[in-house]
Amino acid sequence: MTMIFSEPKLLRLAAREGRFAEPTAGHAPGFLQANLMIVPQAYAFDFLLFCQRNPKACPLIEVLEPGSVHPACAHDANIATDIPLYRLYRDGEFAGERKSVVDLWQPDFVSFLIGCSFSFEAAVAEAGIPLRHVQQGRNVAMYRTNIPCAPAGMFHGEMVVSMRPIKSSDVARVVEISGRFAVAHGVPVHVGNASEIGIVDLAKPDYGDPVAIEENEVPVFWACGVTPQWVAQKSRIPLCVTHAPGMMFVTDLKG
Amino acid sequence: MTMIFSEPKLLRLAAREGRFAEPTAGHAPGFLQANLMIVPQAYAFDFLLFCQRNPKACPLIEVLEPGSVHPACAHDANIATDIPLYRLYRDGEFAGERKSVVDLWQPDFVSFLIGCSFSFEAAVAEAGIPLRHVQQGRNVAMYRTNIPCAPAGMFHGEMVVSMRPIKSSDVARVVEISGRFAVAHGVPVHVGNASEIGIVDLAKPDYGDPVAIEENEVPVFWACGVTPQWVAQKSRIPLCVTHAPGMMFVTDLKG
Repeated sequence: MTMIFSEPKLLRLAAREGRFAEPTAGHAPGFLQANLMIVPQAYAFDFLLFCQRNPKACPLIEVLEPGSVHPACAHDANIATDIPLYRLYRDGEFAGERKSVVDLWQPDFVSFLIGCSFSFEAAVAEAGIPLRHVQQGRNVAMYRTNIPCAPAGMFHGEMVVSMRPIKSSDVARVVEISGRFAVAHGVPVHVGNASEIGIVDLAKPDYGDPVAIEENEVPVFWACGVTPQWVAQKSRIPLCVTHAPGMMFVTDLKG
Repeated sequence: MTMIFSEPKLLRLAAREGRFAEPTAGHAPGFLQANLMIVPQAYAFDFLLFCQRNPKACPLIEVLEPGSVHPACAHDANIATDIPLYRLYRDGEFAGERKSVVDLWQPDFVSFLIGCSFSFEAAVAEAGIPLRHVQQGRNVAMYRTNIPCAPAGMFHGEMVVSMRPIKSSDVARVVEISGRFAVAHGVPVHVGNASEIGIVDLAKPDYGDPVAIEENEVPVFWACGVTPQWVAQKSRIPLCVTHAPGMMFVTDLKG
């Protein structure tokens, strides 16, 4: 990795000015990072209920007032510009990526900030457990699974997970450490045996970059805040705006 | 207390048939009890967001589908009949109590079940710490405070708390035990010094029955699921249906 932002605000500014459109893992260590889901207010109750019913995949950090772009969890931030890369979904179809969504903004947009597993990575690294995707400056590997989410109104579908290869001797400690970060998905949902949760080929993630699994390592899976994107597709939600997987909103909150 | 229901279902049936309209503290020990808040769907997003922003006062157990009277957390239950006593609020005014709300039911009613501190009382009693209101078969004492809730949409106001007198030597243990019940309001919000949170006279609770505080005891305060009722009044919500304070919906869930 060429340059690490230590301050959330500097990363947000770089994203705002179009100078940074990369995965945010490894940046601003110790600060909570967040997935973004924006839906028009007509679907906001259903989506808020979806989060309430699926706290592992969708631990809420903040829900902004309808129309607002200014989250309380980040000073002087703008939710429509400060994420490195956004994704657009229309009627269940992926509809492109962009560096800003200012031009698309609607007064009825409700923004949901959802915890991200990147938030516990600094604590895991401090415990002397290396994380390969951070070391290699790549995006974390993410997979669609067969784990059903609890449906809510128009939202239904399966969980997306992130995967980190962990040494067998470190698995228990990683469980303990990540368990202290409830708002960052907490403990893993699955350890080993990827095929049991419907993952056919670990070398082909549905989002992010593949990462090698070395001998003496097992794949460890955490619920992932990309779940709403996949659920929005499966549920054919007319319109939603999200972050691009791995390119998070970095808050000023300490994890 | 004359008779204790050990089975949630039997208590719900007795309430349904109008045979039981008393406080539920001490009944069905070990089972989660729930506060009820019903609002028309037009206010449901705002209220769900209020719960998300105020998890100490409003820890959600379940949100029912719009119009549904059948919660998943209680077998064969009916949310419109199975609570010992209901309260009605219109435009911020208390509008009476009744044993059933079947005749008032609207297809757009959304029911919220919110954790109740009665749920940790069995564990506290098992630890050898007596709770006076349970011993005396009275309702727990509840007070409006000056502790502001985080507002959400049309909902704003202050927290309501329940109070239990606890021996000074037992306070720490009660904190530990109640802390294990996050969905039942968790640890206390205040210990001692009632006037600091705006309570003028402990002998005059705003809801429930007064209870003596003996020598060697301090009043210990927990966030209370009656908060939505007071907030609905302060916010002049056009219509909501709730349980009568202290007369809870008893679920089949183990605490």
